[in-house]
Amino acid sequence: MTHAQQMLETHPRALQVDAGALIACIDACFDCAQTCTACADASLAEPDVEILLRCITLCQNCSDVCIATGRVLTRQTEFVPELARRVVEACLDACRRCAEECERHAHHHEHCRVSAEECRRCEQACEDVLSALAT
Amino acid sequence: MTHAQQMLETHPRALQVDAGALIACIDACFDCAQTCTACADASLAEPDVEILLRCITLCQNCSDVCIATGRVLTRQTEFVPELARRVVEACLDACRRCAEECERHAHHHEHCRVSAEECRRCEQACEDVLSALAT
Amino acid sequence: MTHAQQMLETHPRALQVDAGALIACIDACFDCAQTCTACADASLAEPDVEILLRCITLCQNCSDVCIATGRVLTRQTEFVPELARRVVEACLDACRRCAEECERHAHHHEHCRVSAEECRRCEQACEDVLSALAT
Amino acid sequence: MTHAQQMLETHPRALQVDAGALIACIDACFDCAQTCTACADASLAEPDVEILLRCITLCQNCSDVCIATGRVLTRQTEFVPELARRVVEACLDACRRCAEECERHAHHHEHCRVSAEECRRCEQACEDVLSALAT
Repeated sequence: MTHAQQMLETHPRALQVDAGALIACIDACFDCAQTCTACADASLAEPDVEILLRCITLCQNCSDVCIATGRVLTRQTEFVPELARRVVEACLDACRRCAEECERHAHHHEHCRVSAEECRRCEQACEDVLSALAT
Repeated sequence: MTHAQQMLETHPRALQVDAGALIACIDACFDCAQTCTACADASLAEPDVEILLRCITLCQNCSDVCIATGRVLTRQTEFVPELARRVVEACLDACRRCAEECERHAHHHEHCRVSAEECRRCEQACEDVLSALAT
Repeated sequence: MTHAQQMLETHPRALQVDAGALIACIDACFDCAQTCTACADASLAEPDVEILLRCITLCQNCSDVCIATGRVLTRQTEFVPELARRVVEACLDACRRCAEECERHAHHHEHCRVSAEECRRCEQACEDVLSALAT
Repeated sequence: MTHAQQMLETHPRALQVDAGALIACIDACFDCAQTCTACADASLAEPDVEILLRCITLCQNCSDVCIATGRVLTRQTEFVPELARRVVEACLDACRRCAEECERHAHHHEHCRVSAEECRRCEQACEDVLSALAT
């Protein structure tokens, strides 16, 4: 049981979204935020940093959007599904673009391979939350 | 001249969005992030905190989304207009909903009035960036 | 193996801090950031919100400081031990004060109990990084 | 009158720190967070990016610490002076180190010159808050 799950299960109000999808997405957002900060930093230290500029920028953007998304989804006291939907859509897009770019460098840089995987996991979690919000 | 303007004017690459709209939105995002954190905090200290729960949550969400948006727009080295568009759409929505809620309390709480104004300013700045991105 | 561990093991530069202490602290910071955002939000929804104001504020502060600390520790390309030390000292203090307050409400509110545990875990992880930085 | 000033003047509780020092530091933290994100991004696009790695990392760290500090200082409902002191000490250190590094590149890169100035302004604002907290 993750800490996000523990926290949501002890929330005084009933969740307005499927708990499984919500917890998976919150966890993925915080994990992806860490991984993307790490990949941007590791890429800076590579000898071929000049071909990694897009990777670095997309990782930084993805990390910032993931933090905001993870927090918005965490706040269930006055949850606004339509706002959550737009934020998660932006997060899904940030994760997808970051994953695509990291995948281009994954065979040269192991940190890009790990980061791409984490972004794909978060992208999928965002899709699942969007499905849950639509029902 | 704001510091955001100074920084963008010294950027080694050409901007891909109208500079005026971009600078206004970046400034508005960081200002709104501060104001919404302040309004959430001031609302906590009000005797009628129980009717301000939605205001507090929307302010916290707006602050987090504004920080992410201000940073994504600031990063011009590998700017991706489509990603920026989705992030700004989420920010516009966060600002609009926060403004609507703060306006409901503006006649009782001066901090809600100021916060609503700041959110409306950021909402408009987001609209202007979306227009600039569409051209 | 956590993703923070995977990322640090693929970093092109040698770490300047004990890897075990570093990874544990990075993971604890991101986990604690989520948990404290969740506890602040859950506390807002409690009928006795007025006695939870200190808990809410300390949770919000702790969450923000944990995000900053988790990111500073993640960045190993140009790691500055003295800066890291000061940031981790602030994080340790934020976690300790938040834990103390949450513990006061832990018998009434399960989310405060979970949050206190997470803060204590992060506090300990900060102490271990400070010990590692001192050697 | 800045928006931070407007917000603090409408806060339902009495401030526990000198208002002038507090407002100046909050404003400086949010401005510095934007400027440092911008300098890190502009540096990425420079032909001599490889000698700017330390500048980029210190700017990113400074931006994250400034956001956390600006928010902790903004929250006055349950202000804890001792926690604020530690956070501001970390921020002062982040600003000073970032300024020192940016100053080394200020004659080549105008964005480093602007960023160094903003960091020095925030460093001074942190010192003034520390003095105010000590009285």
